[in-house]
Amino acid sequence: MKEQPLSESRLHLRFDRLGRGLSDRVLLSPGDDMAMIGLGSSSRMLVATDQVVVGRHVRPDEDPHAIGRKAVLRNLSDVAAMAARPIATIAAASLSPRRSHDWAERLHAGLHETGLAFDAPLIGGDLATHVHEDSADVVTVTILAVPTLPLDRVISRSGAKVGDLLAVTGRLGGSLDPAGGGRHLDFPPRIEEAIELAGLLGPDLVAMLDVSDGVARDAGRLAVAGGLNVRINAATLPCNPGCGWEQAVGDGEDYELLFACRRQPPAMLHGLPVTVIGRFIEAPNAPGAVELEVDGSIRSIADLGWEHAGS
Amino acid sequence: MKEQPLSESRLHLRFDRLGRGLSDRVLLSPGDDMAMIGLGSSSRMLVATDQVVVGRHVRPDEDPHAIGRKAVLRNLSDVAAMAARPIATIAAASLSPRRSHDWAERLHAGLHETGLAFDAPLIGGDLATHVHEDSADVVTVTILAVPTLPLDRVISRSGAKVGDLLAVTGRLGGSLDPAGGGRHLDFPPRIEEAIELAGLLGPDLVAMLDVSDGVARDAGRLAVAGGLNVRINAATLPCNPGCGWEQAVGDGEDYELLFACRRQPPAMLHGLPVTVIGRFIEAPNAPGAVELEVDGSIRSIADLGWEHAGS
Repeated sequence: MKEQPLSESRLHLRFDRLGRGLSDRVLLSPGDDMAMIGLGSSSRMLVATDQVVVGRHVRPDEDPHAIGRKAVLRNLSDVAAMAARPIATIAAASLSPRRSHDWAERLHAGLHETGLAFDAPLIGGDLATHVHEDSADVVTVTILAVPTLPLDRVISRSGAKVGDLLAVTGRLGGSLDPAGGGRHLDFPPRIEEAIELAGLLGPDLVAMLDVSDGVARDAGRLAVAGGLNVRINAATLPCNPGCGWEQAVGDGEDYELLFACRRQPPAMLHGLPVTVIGRFIEAPNAPGAVELEVDGSIRSIADLGWEHAGS
Repeated sequence: MKEQPLSESRLHLRFDRLGRGLSDRVLLSPGDDMAMIGLGSSSRMLVATDQVVVGRHVRPDEDPHAIGRKAVLRNLSDVAAMAARPIATIAAASLSPRRSHDWAERLHAGLHETGLAFDAPLIGGDLATHVHEDSADVVTVTILAVPTLPLDRVISRSGAKVGDLLAVTGRLGGSLDPAGGGRHLDFPPRIEEAIELAGLLGPDLVAMLDVSDGVARDAGRLAVAGGLNVRINAATLPCNPGCGWEQAVGDGEDYELLFACRRQPPAMLHGLPVTVIGRFIEAPNAPGAVELEVDGSIRSIADLGWEHAGS
């Protein structure tokens, strides 16, 4: 029997399915940016975990301080996607035995200082060394956060309805391009912007995530979660300098907020532009299709070569 | 300038130092089995993270279900060391691209089923693939737990005083020996025993951890944390069948409770024997020395070849 190759998105679908209906304490289960658990009648906590795999997410010769910082920033971006406030981080690292003590100290400094800077101190961790020098280093950060919204409100990925607007903070594209200054290594997680947005829009902010895999894939996730399709107007995409709409929808690691809302969002949040880039529409067939309106014609993201992401 | 080699214990000392005095919310910081954070005036949460590195902690050809189970059990053992109750787990895995979809599903099943069995459902996670096939798989589990003790009581590693007894649950040694049935892969975390012990001994249970690196090293950790030395009577060590005192103090991954108490502990906990194996003594010089009384003569653990563990 031929074995199936590893597919992250197929496995995530399985994890999400098994994660539903776990217990009364689990208020929001796998498949969202963070999981939420209840602690008694009035206290809730959010938790998420994210990895930086050297060679995959950063170059092997990258400054270890920047690797540690990125590992924490990715998690802080998940906290922003829930309009929550971070309170602590905990880290685990598996390092190649060829790494020096100094390298590991700089990695730790990157984790520690970034956590402190965002009121999410590093409160614990685990360190292991690989057996073989050629094994890739892995840095895993788990983040704890508390909600800023009333008990009955959670901004998950799944609240969009037909006619809701799709909007994004900041500018998109080119984050992985070395000419772009290495934004994927050092970006401001949109925590304060998300909290202000949730306050300004109230219940009209219906779904949100952070753009990690590119707007094409991440808008598809909001659409799938709402049982809808989504149509993006290419001309409205806020592109970083030197980027066209292709990079704005296709490049990953922007770490901006992508959200669905029932009325016009504010034009600015803490000095950051907010742009409406599309609208959620009916899904005649399986939901999650992302359509792109370019020069008056409608094209499917799938036809443009971006893989549809299941989760 | 020559670079210093990677040393887990030296790095841990640095992490512990930086982790002190972080914020009012951090009630117990790095260096203990779990970190504790406060959530408002009456709610506290414990968190720990632990990794299973394939090749280091399990064989590369091990059943992935057993790898997932071990990753959760190691964390549950940390929860036991705090006399706490687990409430949720979150996992991250970095896998070699040569692993199959079926392999990853079995890993996930091991994580999911073990968490459920101990009321700590898997509520989220992250999956990444390495770039190179030869990179070792890493499975990181973070566990959340709630205390079972009153707000003013925490059983950390650092409560021992001169004259306190050193005691251990169950039997020791041979856990890594294939003839021992692979106990390091499947062991009962002593959660209920720890909670009962904390209830029976009350404030006379003064320090505790779980035996992960062998009694020689782990008793040294309790001694260091208390600013003391400790003397173990070899004849009293409860050995697993086929093991002598050398294995009972030197072998790792027993995952029994090792604790300091101010009066005689119960002889049994939930049918599990409890044995007093030593006593904390003054440290004339740097604390943390472990002495072993064998056939009437006192020998130093350091002289017997077990590395002194700094943390």
